[in-house]
Amino acid sequence: MDLGYSTALLTDHYELTMVRAALHSGVAQRRAVFEVFARRLPPGRRYGVVTGTGRLLDALAAYTFDEAALEYLTSHGVLDEATATWAAGYRFTGNVWGYAEGECFFPGSPILVVEGTFAEAVVLETLVLSILNHDCAIAAAASRMATAAGDRPLIEMGSRRTHEEAAVAAARAAYVAGFATTSNLAAGRRYGLPTAGTAAHAFTLLHDGERNAFAAQLAALGPDTTLLVDTYDVPRAVRTAVDLAGPALGAVRIDSGDLGAVAREVREQLDSLGAPGTRIVVTGDLDEYGIAALAAAPVNGYGVGTSLVTGSGAPTASLVYKLVARADSAAPGSPLRPVAKRSVGKPSRGGRKAALRRRNSHGTATAEVVTLGEPAPAPNDRVLLRPLVRNGEIVGREPLAAARDRHAAALRELPPTARQLSAGDPAVPTEFLGRP
Amino acid sequence: MDLGYSTALLTDHYELTMVRAALHSGVAQRRAVFEVFARRLPPGRRYGVVTGTGRLLDALAAYTFDEAALEYLTSHGVLDEATATWAAGYRFTGNVWGYAEGECFFPGSPILVVEGTFAEAVVLETLVLSILNHDCAIAAAASRMATAAGDRPLIEMGSRRTHEEAAVAAARAAYVAGFATTSNLAAGRRYGLPTAGTAAHAFTLLHDGERNAFAAQLAALGPDTTLLVDTYDVPRAVRTAVDLAGPALGAVRIDSGDLGAVAREVREQLDSLGAPGTRIVVTGDLDEYGIAALAAAPVNGYGVGTSLVTGSGAPTASLVYKLVARADSAAPGSPLRPVAKRSVGKPSRGGRKAALRRRNSHGTATAEVVTLGEPAPAPNDRVLLRPLVRNGEIVGREPLAAARDRHAAALRELPPTARQLSAGDPAVPTEFLGRP
Repeated sequence: MDLGYSTALLTDHYELTMVRAALHSGVAQRRAVFEVFARRLPPGRRYGVVTGTGRLLDALAAYTFDEAALEYLTSHGVLDEATATWAAGYRFTGNVWGYAEGECFFPGSPILVVEGTFAEAVVLETLVLSILNHDCAIAAAASRMATAAGDRPLIEMGSRRTHEEAAVAAARAAYVAGFATTSNLAAGRRYGLPTAGTAAHAFTLLHDGERNAFAAQLAALGPDTTLLVDTYDVPRAVRTAVDLAGPALGAVRIDSGDLGAVAREVREQLDSLGAPGTRIVVTGDLDEYGIAALAAAPVNGYGVGTSLVTGSGAPTASLVYKLVARADSAAPGSPLRPVAKRSVGKPSRGGRKAALRRRNSHGTATAEVVTLGEPAPAPNDRVLLRPLVRNGEIVGREPLAAARDRHAAALRELPPTARQLSAGDPAVPTEFLGRP
Repeated sequence: MDLGYSTALLTDHYELTMVRAALHSGVAQRRAVFEVFARRLPPGRRYGVVTGTGRLLDALAAYTFDEAALEYLTSHGVLDEATATWAAGYRFTGNVWGYAEGECFFPGSPILVVEGTFAEAVVLETLVLSILNHDCAIAAAASRMATAAGDRPLIEMGSRRTHEEAAVAAARAAYVAGFATTSNLAAGRRYGLPTAGTAAHAFTLLHDGERNAFAAQLAALGPDTTLLVDTYDVPRAVRTAVDLAGPALGAVRIDSGDLGAVAREVREQLDSLGAPGTRIVVTGDLDEYGIAALAAAPVNGYGVGTSLVTGSGAPTASLVYKLVARADSAAPGSPLRPVAKRSVGKPSRGGRKAALRRRNSHGTATAEVVTLGEPAPAPNDRVLLRPLVRNGEIVGREPLAAARDRHAAALRELPPTARQLSAGDPAVPTEFLGRP
């Protein structure tokens, strides 16, 4: 997708001043490898979900410095003349490999590998992490909610609880992780997601009485709509709804009270009124635990807002972008040498890595194997890194449905503990093979 | 600011289908008043911070449906012909009042009041809440961090931990709440914020030895730069830094370890090396508590990332947009009638409201007074709502510096408990006067 705007300034000041200093010292063109990984998952989580890859490729294609950006950067002393010249000609010419979108990941999984000159690769750090940290955080929460919901559809409706553009990305991430629809129209248009909606209390309050409001909605949108029944008195509203729409009424929505108890009463009432096909949708501060708690209630769908767009307690995925190898000179063919810092409490492993999902003969994942150098996959192993960008050319684009299908398959492949909502260790251990 | 793109689809599906049904039933043009307020503050927080107003006014000005949006909405069955015609001519023509940007708020504070026809006002719900819920959440966290930091400057550097556009808005919100600078270049350009940066470990690892890296940075950026000293061995790095830069060295940054202990050692070392003017900047998972814990350490500035952009535990501000009054007919002059739903556990107060900050003779705030109808301010009271949009014309734009100054003043006016980091009740009680 052509974004139609430059993403070059969606970065940190220091990325460009580092390029400036590296150009000055003559090392900017050294070949370098950066890796994106998480040192740990959020507390208690069993797996992470790679999401945002498609957005990242679009953002990378739009990473060029236009006149206005260059003028800003030079007039504010961020770039000197040499760096401005470099920036004006910027176009990523390196290689990117990544875990495919929708794939699961674990602590240490090298979910993205960026290889290029130091200069061209380092400036992507902030943008790459912004996209992946946000989208992976949302998808990880969404995936747990989808597990909790089972076969019942989930509607993503959190746009109002997060930044207006984060909302669009959140809808996309939720869809990859198994949500059925979103309320966000920009996400519908931009990514082809199915959109859905019901009505707000304001719509009922606007009309002279609930009956008029329901009649208006039914007349305009047809009987297969969802009527909001908790503005005043639920049993009365349900009676009115079926009275007006008959058994063809699509659904009713409950947004307050003890959702399980109210749903049971409403189900009984709908059945007794001859509307057994009318569905019940519940909303109102649901998270994966709230959804799971309603598994035995007669609920047909869930709308999820705040907890989805805030990552259900983990609003960012803790992914980092680290230099793991670089050449000793800018000469072509100069070999890559592993590098790592020695910070306390922040383990870093130098050297370029590959990764396999080790699986037993039943196809169940048993380990995340991270290797230095080329891996040696056993027959059941899956190789996890695939090319996304080759010599600057984007080769990793795919339909969003592929990522959604992949996530479902990747999750099925994990041992059953992965799908427990309770806090615990990662579903499979990460094994690091080889020493730099 | 002209955004240069349409914001009309940054909304929920149901906003437009509600308009469609209301057009059908003939009530879409009834005069309506919506209010934005928070039922409660995040647990333990003493006050909220209004932020995002300027962004909201820009987004409102860009809220028009272009051809492509209309085509998407009609072809996907969201709009019928009548609603598409309405949308094609959409331009907000109503009035908006709000708490000024930077102002503090409390539970029930009507921080934004939107008056217009139901149709023109309801479609703004999602966008208004996205902007305010995000920006207010960030500013509330930033304000506490600024209090904890006292006179020491705070650098916002969280871009990589949040959605790439949320990052720009977060930098803006943090500035309003007292941060000194941001690392985000797009925020620097878009909002005129001062930007700042140091260097990453990758820059040191790229060079053949730390001495070469430091020399490169000093040569390119001058001695008043900030050298990152914890890639290998801190005391050796500090020695190298002063050896190369002399006493003119601007600052060193510490990003790992026990920041207080390391800062004390580095301060001693810098002083003993004759560099008493070299500042110490600390970074690394700091939040308001971490900042406060370093108050006695010889630290000159803090860089804050993750906790800032995730609202330090409260990533969204829980603001809602509720219909509180509407006319009985679309006829001009039809009086507004208070409305409210009767949901369990979600208190709503019908009727259009005004608000005052009640202050004692020392100028200290003692209550948030929310009144139905026009308020009667006592001599020390401050009227809180001011016009932002008048008959569709935006009248509330102001320089960002005004919001920043206002926040500092609004915070000073609150009782001292407001500035405690410990969990507690709102700093002043909200008093509701009058009954609808």
